[in-house]
Amino acid sequence: MPITRVGIIGTGVMGSDHARILASCVAGAELAGVFDVDQARAVSLAEETGARVFDGATALIADQGIDAIIVCSPDATHSELALACIAAGKPALVEKPLASTVAGAVDVMKAETTGGRRLIQVGFTRRFDPGYIAMKEALASDRLGQALFLHCIHRNAVGPDYLTSELVIASSAGHEFDITRFLLEDEIVSATVASPRASRLAPNRQPQFILLETASGVIVDIEVFVDCIYGYDVRAELVCEKGTVSLNTSPATMLRHAGYDGFETPPDWRDRFKHAYRQQLQGWIDAIHGMPNHGASTWDGYRSMKVTEACLAACRSGQKTAVPVEEMPTFYR
Amino acid sequence: MPITRVGIIGTGVMGSDHARILASCVAGAELAGVFDVDQARAVSLAEETGARVFDGATALIADQGIDAIIVCSPDATHSELALACIAAGKPALVEKPLASTVAGAVDVMKAETTGGRRLIQVGFTRRFDPGYIAMKEALASDRLGQALFLHCIHRNAVGPDYLTSELVIASSAGHEFDITRFLLEDEIVSATVASPRASRLAPNRQPQFILLETASGVIVDIEVFVDCIYGYDVRAELVCEKGTVSLNTSPATMLRHAGYDGFETPPDWRDRFKHAYRQQLQGWIDAIHGMPNHGASTWDGYRSMKVTEACLAACRSGQKTAVPVEEMPTFYR
Amino acid sequence: MPITRVGIIGTGVMGSDHARILASCVAGAELAGVFDVDQARAVSLAEETGARVFDGATALIADQGIDAIIVCSPDATHSELALACIAAGKPALVEKPLASTVAGAVDVMKAETTGGRRLIQVGFTRRFDPGYIAMKEALASDRLGQALFLHCIHRNAVGPDYLTSELVIASSAGHEFDITRFLLEDEIVSATVASPRASRLAPNRQPQFILLETASGVIVDIEVFVDCIYGYDVRAELVCEKGTVSLNTSPATMLRHAGYDGFETPPDWRDRFKHAYRQQLQGWIDAIHGMPNHGASTWDGYRSMKVTEACLAACRSGQKTAVPVEEMPTFYR
Amino acid sequence: MPITRVGIIGTGVMGSDHARILASCVAGAELAGVFDVDQARAVSLAEETGARVFDGATALIADQGIDAIIVCSPDATHSELALACIAAGKPALVEKPLASTVAGAVDVMKAETTGGRRLIQVGFTRRFDPGYIAMKEALASDRLGQALFLHCIHRNAVGPDYLTSELVIASSAGHEFDITRFLLEDEIVSATVASPRASRLAPNRQPQFILLETASGVIVDIEVFVDCIYGYDVRAELVCEKGTVSLNTSPATMLRHAGYDGFETPPDWRDRFKHAYRQQLQGWIDAIHGMPNHGASTWDGYRSMKVTEACLAACRSGQKTAVPVEEMPTFYR
Repeated sequence: MPITRVGIIGTGVMGSDHARILASCVAGAELAGVFDVDQARAVSLAEETGARVFDGATALIADQGIDAIIVCSPDATHSELALACIAAGKPALVEKPLASTVAGAVDVMKAETTGGRRLIQVGFTRRFDPGYIAMKEALASDRLGQALFLHCIHRNAVGPDYLTSELVIASSAGHEFDITRFLLEDEIVSATVASPRASRLAPNRQPQFILLETASGVIVDIEVFVDCIYGYDVRAELVCEKGTVSLNTSPATMLRHAGYDGFETPPDWRDRFKHAYRQQLQGWIDAIHGMPNHGASTWDGYRSMKVTEACLAACRSGQKTAVPVEEMPTFYR
Repeated sequence: MPITRVGIIGTGVMGSDHARILASCVAGAELAGVFDVDQARAVSLAEETGARVFDGATALIADQGIDAIIVCSPDATHSELALACIAAGKPALVEKPLASTVAGAVDVMKAETTGGRRLIQVGFTRRFDPGYIAMKEALASDRLGQALFLHCIHRNAVGPDYLTSELVIASSAGHEFDITRFLLEDEIVSATVASPRASRLAPNRQPQFILLETASGVIVDIEVFVDCIYGYDVRAELVCEKGTVSLNTSPATMLRHAGYDGFETPPDWRDRFKHAYRQQLQGWIDAIHGMPNHGASTWDGYRSMKVTEACLAACRSGQKTAVPVEEMPTFYR
Repeated sequence: MPITRVGIIGTGVMGSDHARILASCVAGAELAGVFDVDQARAVSLAEETGARVFDGATALIADQGIDAIIVCSPDATHSELALACIAAGKPALVEKPLASTVAGAVDVMKAETTGGRRLIQVGFTRRFDPGYIAMKEALASDRLGQALFLHCIHRNAVGPDYLTSELVIASSAGHEFDITRFLLEDEIVSATVASPRASRLAPNRQPQFILLETASGVIVDIEVFVDCIYGYDVRAELVCEKGTVSLNTSPATMLRHAGYDGFETPPDWRDRFKHAYRQQLQGWIDAIHGMPNHGASTWDGYRSMKVTEACLAACRSGQKTAVPVEEMPTFYR
Repeated sequence: MPITRVGIIGTGVMGSDHARILASCVAGAELAGVFDVDQARAVSLAEETGARVFDGATALIADQGIDAIIVCSPDATHSELALACIAAGKPALVEKPLASTVAGAVDVMKAETTGGRRLIQVGFTRRFDPGYIAMKEALASDRLGQALFLHCIHRNAVGPDYLTSELVIASSAGHEFDITRFLLEDEIVSATVASPRASRLAPNRQPQFILLETASGVIVDIEVFVDCIYGYDVRAELVCEKGTVSLNTSPATMLRHAGYDGFETPPDWRDRFKHAYRQQLQGWIDAIHGMPNHGASTWDGYRSMKVTEACLAACRSGQKTAVPVEEMPTFYR
């Protein structure tokens, strides 16, 4: 088995997690390099994992000892670094969002298409979660019939201060848009947004409720509530003609304690999606080695941004807003 | 304890169920009379329960041996019989809907108000379900904070042939409108409706998705799918500032059998809401004996019809539709 | 429907609960009288419910205005009062245990047999719990095949101070012995007892583990832990040849709150078995009115005491101890 | 990261599974060689995974291109091959049981001790299951207090024909003995066995119920039923002074379908313990690279065999049987 030498750009929470997973439990890969603008942080991670510290993102991407790159730097740098990886002909896993503007995403698509090689995977981790995969398999088996509704819930315990009502849609809901497209293999054609009052515990932003229609006639609804206090909670129920399949969020053990019978909700996404994070990296490495992959492409990253754009418009207008439909380029089929 | 002598008009499925519950497990009541246009059906039920058979609804209502009436006859007769009970000064439990037109409901409200006595309870049974009551108590305790979202699901295994897409809203969703108002103690101010494709197993009607806003800023969403095949399933999750409370639909026993681990879904509402049906009758009888009651009033029945009207308009227009807000008459406070 | 006038002897926690249930939600009954050695307590309950206060148990039993009696006085008085009810020819619901000695139980059986009428029902409430009834129906349906194992768990949050290790068996486990016999329609033929170390939070008594064999070859195990701290919890799983059926203890609503997802355990048996308590009284009244009844007979009360006796011996000896098998008297079939 | 080159002896169901996991998702390892007495089977697996086929177990163990060995050959060969690996100074993961006789296990312990290096890990996979690990962590946190009871259930859908009542104890229950010792860090000191009637669907063997006591006073009970028909089901509840923690067996998705609400039970252990199988191999490889490991040692394999021996004696005698206590050799601490 060949060993892919991976460099990570950005060693904050996400980058460090990727580094540790890669170094400890992914077959066929090796953490070879790290870079962060905060060099001390990069050095610390390098010492822990045995990776080499780089002076800059460009140097890391260019280095002959680096075969593939994970981009975990701030959102504003994603598309530029993706372009650099494409220019270097090296595969990259780019954390979502692919770009900070739709135009930026288009640039990456164009460069990749021109280059003629699919090099970019967008970090929509949930595509590797065993629960979503089992939902997709249940739908594919046709045992439940066609999809009619998809109910999604996205709750964080406490959102970061900088999140506005619009960022609740633009940032938090992005995972839901991608997983909807992944599960249903269908395009979103309209968006309606309704906003309840703000929680008094997070008065500066409103939770959001997003109602989507797909080209095939599936109704998708998404609650996004980033200040639910009680814990991190991501749920989905896919309602089909003859039955429903839903994510099971209960962990490996149940607890009866202190007047409760049930389980403890995780504080954040890391434990909840730990299998997905490992599988995402394993799948990315396997794809580099030539195996099929169901990670999100540049096209997928671009379409999620188009849906986001429509949702923001719907939120402002209070009206149902169309998401322009485009044909998927042959290159991305 | 005084014994209230009850007469039942209409001895179909609902009327017979009420009769049996009243005769076997409600304190302070006695099943004294029954009437049905299908006399054989009435006679059979009378023989089973020891009640007297009446020749007509008017005779039953007028009879001195009847203290209170349950109206379970066809929908079109509800408001007329409610008016007759009011005229006779006798309490009546009227199956929902209160009337077949908004105007009919207004007539009953006027007559009751003029009469000066609250005599009519509308049969919105779910107000007596232990689950919804516990949800309301959880909200009242303020332990979870204010409500922000209410997610509702209403699924029947197989809908009756006569149900159209509009009747899915007008008939099946009615329970959800009332329970929303009951739980939140809030008025619905707008309605938006989205319809997925029809199930291929019930091609003549579409499932419906209803999005409501309340005066206080709660977002309510309702899936109504009367052909889900797998079983009867009514769910609700109330999302508050610090936690959520949801209906638990699992029955008294769990089963591990034939490759499954879980429970069997009931075929219809009767077993699912059996405690609610008993409690509804006990509560109605207790109210006749002077105890407080949280059953649905004529006003509640009327308001649900107004929401229904708005949903039907929203379904036709594809637009968000306002539900005209009215002040609750003092008489119904 | 005839109305049975009920007198209650003993108005402590259990007696008051029975009184309130009887007065508010049992058809065909009326709370007519109460007696307690603590007269103030009896008066208070009488004022709340409208019952008459009696000066003594004997006067209550003898009174022509009392048709049936509930015995909730201290355990030591049960058999004597049962005998008085039999002498008066009046039906009685006697709280468990039927007697404080096996000899006392035998006396009641003899008196009842001699009198020729089945008048005594022992208050083994669980026979009226919807969960146990559904388990028994599942077994009867033969859909799961024959029973092989019955796993039982009996946990209280905090046991009363006076409970010793022996009383954990003699008092708390009694419900399990009766429900085993009820579910399996089988006699217990041997008992083995193992005791773990005491909890440091209840150092004066040990939890107990009881292993029973039935005449037909079913293995029954019972954990009895009266100091589990987290809440009241009664569970059972009946393992059959092709599947298992188990009690579902989750209540009408689920909660996501404060880092937990699940439900709150009840503090004691009253809420957990509230349906059972109502059904027990309704079933007892119905039986008085001639309907079939599955309440525990004097024979059932006696047999549970024999199993208790064997368990105590097994606990002392550390050995498997036989429970002498006797044929059920024809009178009790 | 060094790459450990692994050879697998025995390429049946277990061996092939190990091979595929090692080749696809374990970091730091490479599947280098395979051997099976059925050479076609070995060749087929080698073609699939890129491993080299060996002519014999001895050649594979001796080969300089093999750093570590997985022994999945028939039970009777385990101890002999373990001895060969020790002689060659190479680490080995030996499928349970460590030996087919207690004497065989003692031989392996002696050889390993004499050699002075811990080289053998016994394949008690459950030690790597996230559920059992979380149970152990819950106990270690002391949040629940000390352990008092451990309830275990081990059910297979349909056992293989050759299983006798004794093999139900000797083979199927082995995992439970080891996990008890692992969870409680305590030795088993007595065993009692009770056997219900046989299922009519598997009349040639009886299910078994095993009651164990540990040195510290924990009561452990184990149901072993290898013909439960409905699916593979392994459960455990650890009851402590202030709460309980139990395995959650529900998978990543729940299903509402065909009258059921719940989840599908897996047909066998492979899907149920897939995370454990991967983690076992990753942990074994990590240990070879010098990291701490909680896999079962030769001592653990030996002690499980001693418990098995006592259970078989207890089953024959119907009496409580002591398990001789021995001090753990310093070498294995």
